[in-house]
Amino acid sequence: MSNNILNHQIRLAARPVGFPKDSDWLHTEEPVRELNEGEILVKTLFISIDPAMRGWMNGGKSYIRPVEINEVMRAGGVGIVIASKSDQFQVGQHLSGSLGVQEYWIGMANDKYAGFYPIDPQVAPLPSYLNALGMPGMTAYFGLLEVGQPKAGETVVVSGAAGAVGQTVGQVAKQHGCRVVGIAGGQEKCDFVVNELGFDACIDYKGGSVKDGLKQHCPNGVDIYFDNVGGDILDTVLTRINMKARIIICGAISQYNNTTAIKGPSNYLSLLVNRAKMEGIVVFDYVKRYPEAVQQMSEWMKAGQFHTREDIIQGLDKFPEALMMLFEGKNFGKLILQINPSQG
Amino acid sequence: MSNNILNHQIRLAARPVGFPKDSDWLHTEEPVRELNEGEILVKTLFISIDPAMRGWMNGGKSYIRPVEINEVMRAGGVGIVIASKSDQFQVGQHLSGSLGVQEYWIGMANDKYAGFYPIDPQVAPLPSYLNALGMPGMTAYFGLLEVGQPKAGETVVVSGAAGAVGQTVGQVAKQHGCRVVGIAGGQEKCDFVVNELGFDACIDYKGGSVKDGLKQHCPNGVDIYFDNVGGDILDTVLTRINMKARIIICGAISQYNNTTAIKGPSNYLSLLVNRAKMEGIVVFDYVKRYPEAVQQMSEWMKAGQFHTREDIIQGLDKFPEALMMLFEGKNFGKLILQINPSQG
Repeated sequence: MSNNILNHQIRLAARPVGFPKDSDWLHTEEPVRELNEGEILVKTLFISIDPAMRGWMNGGKSYIRPVEINEVMRAGGVGIVIASKSDQFQVGQHLSGSLGVQEYWIGMANDKYAGFYPIDPQVAPLPSYLNALGMPGMTAYFGLLEVGQPKAGETVVVSGAAGAVGQTVGQVAKQHGCRVVGIAGGQEKCDFVVNELGFDACIDYKGGSVKDGLKQHCPNGVDIYFDNVGGDILDTVLTRINMKARIIICGAISQYNNTTAIKGPSNYLSLLVNRAKMEGIVVFDYVKRYPEAVQQMSEWMKAGQFHTREDIIQGLDKFPEALMMLFEGKNFGKLILQINPSQG
Repeated sequence: MSNNILNHQIRLAARPVGFPKDSDWLHTEEPVRELNEGEILVKTLFISIDPAMRGWMNGGKSYIRPVEINEVMRAGGVGIVIASKSDQFQVGQHLSGSLGVQEYWIGMANDKYAGFYPIDPQVAPLPSYLNALGMPGMTAYFGLLEVGQPKAGETVVVSGAAGAVGQTVGQVAKQHGCRVVGIAGGQEKCDFVVNELGFDACIDYKGGSVKDGLKQHCPNGVDIYFDNVGGDILDTVLTRINMKARIIICGAISQYNNTTAIKGPSNYLSLLVNRAKMEGIVVFDYVKRYPEAVQQMSEWMKAGQFHTREDIIQGLDKFPEALMMLFEGKNFGKLILQINPSQG
């Protein structure tokens, strides 16, 4: 059946210097081949646009191998199985995994790199599986709880507060009885995290001084800072941390497109003064515990105590543009690309 | 008896910009007053010259209040009680505490700021109580063991390896079965830590590339880095850390005299990639546990398994010069000022 289907793909053409540009991408198409024994054919429905993608485009050693030149760009996604020669997945079943920036994925159902697991659209809408119930949500959940170890009454600050990870960090922290202060770009995003997600306050870094905002909204200092942005905001928060504070290093979107060296936190000696720690988190370390987080957050969702927001862009070809939206802070909510609208 | 005695003192005259200079100090003398009830008069024998002194000279909030202008410069020291109206200390008894850069200390025996505790010259030579058995040793011992949590077979790297903290970090790590690699300035210091202290290797940062040295001497990467220096060396070690590495932030002597902002670690995202942590340590948090560390290290000393080296400068007036030696890396071993040689 499958060799009538054309698979459109976006591949990495060159390693970007600074912001990715059009010539760093290659748009290709190829017919979908026949299935072999044990394989499945997946139709991509949604893919996740993540800050981490920028790192995957660089060469060199990191927590995951780089995307090779001419390889289909790596992307987490959700899709539906449309052909199967495997016992593991049946036609019509939904799954999540590393589908790549392409319309179809073909290969062994148990492919380790793809890491497919079944998802249930009855439990939550499909885009949720790329947001709170997907990688960003797992990152937020385990980063906050395992590295941050929040205690009721503590003050938690999270940057990128309206983004995929930030939304979940703040809401999980509220569920644990913390005071939660977001940092986001623009009044609209700030209003959203306060009014719709229930944060206690939000600092608009584009509209005023983060330092003043922290003074105002964190009168008892900062016990946990969940950092998604790095740069000046990290440095400013370091001046307001409490004794034994925990800083969770999840990302540094302000620095990913630098053509010069990354700006290290000049105020890192605040860690010494305050006997505080700064610790990195990579979500893959918690893969065996994803089900407990999914169960907990979907319960909160059903109870109306947990909300998410996605910013969904239409069409595979919009991928390069969507990625730039992320670096420019133009998305509002978890950024997702819908690949085959007719099948959503 | 005491009002025939003149007390020479060195006071802070101005807050330095960059390296402290002569005009930042005020040399004063005043007669020692009569003792009141509960007070003791202590004759200073040795004082400790520490990198932390530079921070105490700055204004602003830190882990300890700044030295005020015209106040006697803060310094830890060991001395002998030469007059007492307290039950707590008898004449002839040796003690350790915050004596300041002066020949005599007078005040309440239980003064909290001074924090005196008795020491025994039979257990170890007096200068040891400002080195392995004093603040630097306690910092090294608890920083390494409590924050670092070393396991046998792991690789521990320590900068300022021939300095007061570094000597102890390396030897305690060896006692716990670790591979220990020092970083120090000059071949002589490197030879000392390898041949006399038993480190497995030492990298001469003045004689070659720290990066190459780490590649050569830490073939399995770095599990624990005990940082006394900050700056470029911290950044270089960050490129060689292992998964779940622990970086203990104890100091940043390379940065203390900066007139521009401190150089933050540009490679801090290595914490993310490696799920590693960077944590500050302040020795005062472990004050109740000092006795266990003193007992353990003095046992090792008696058994000939633990060595220390002090660099002892003579005379109160040499204090400003001695402090500069530290920032220029000219001391070889724990830097100590001997105040009253006749009483040593």
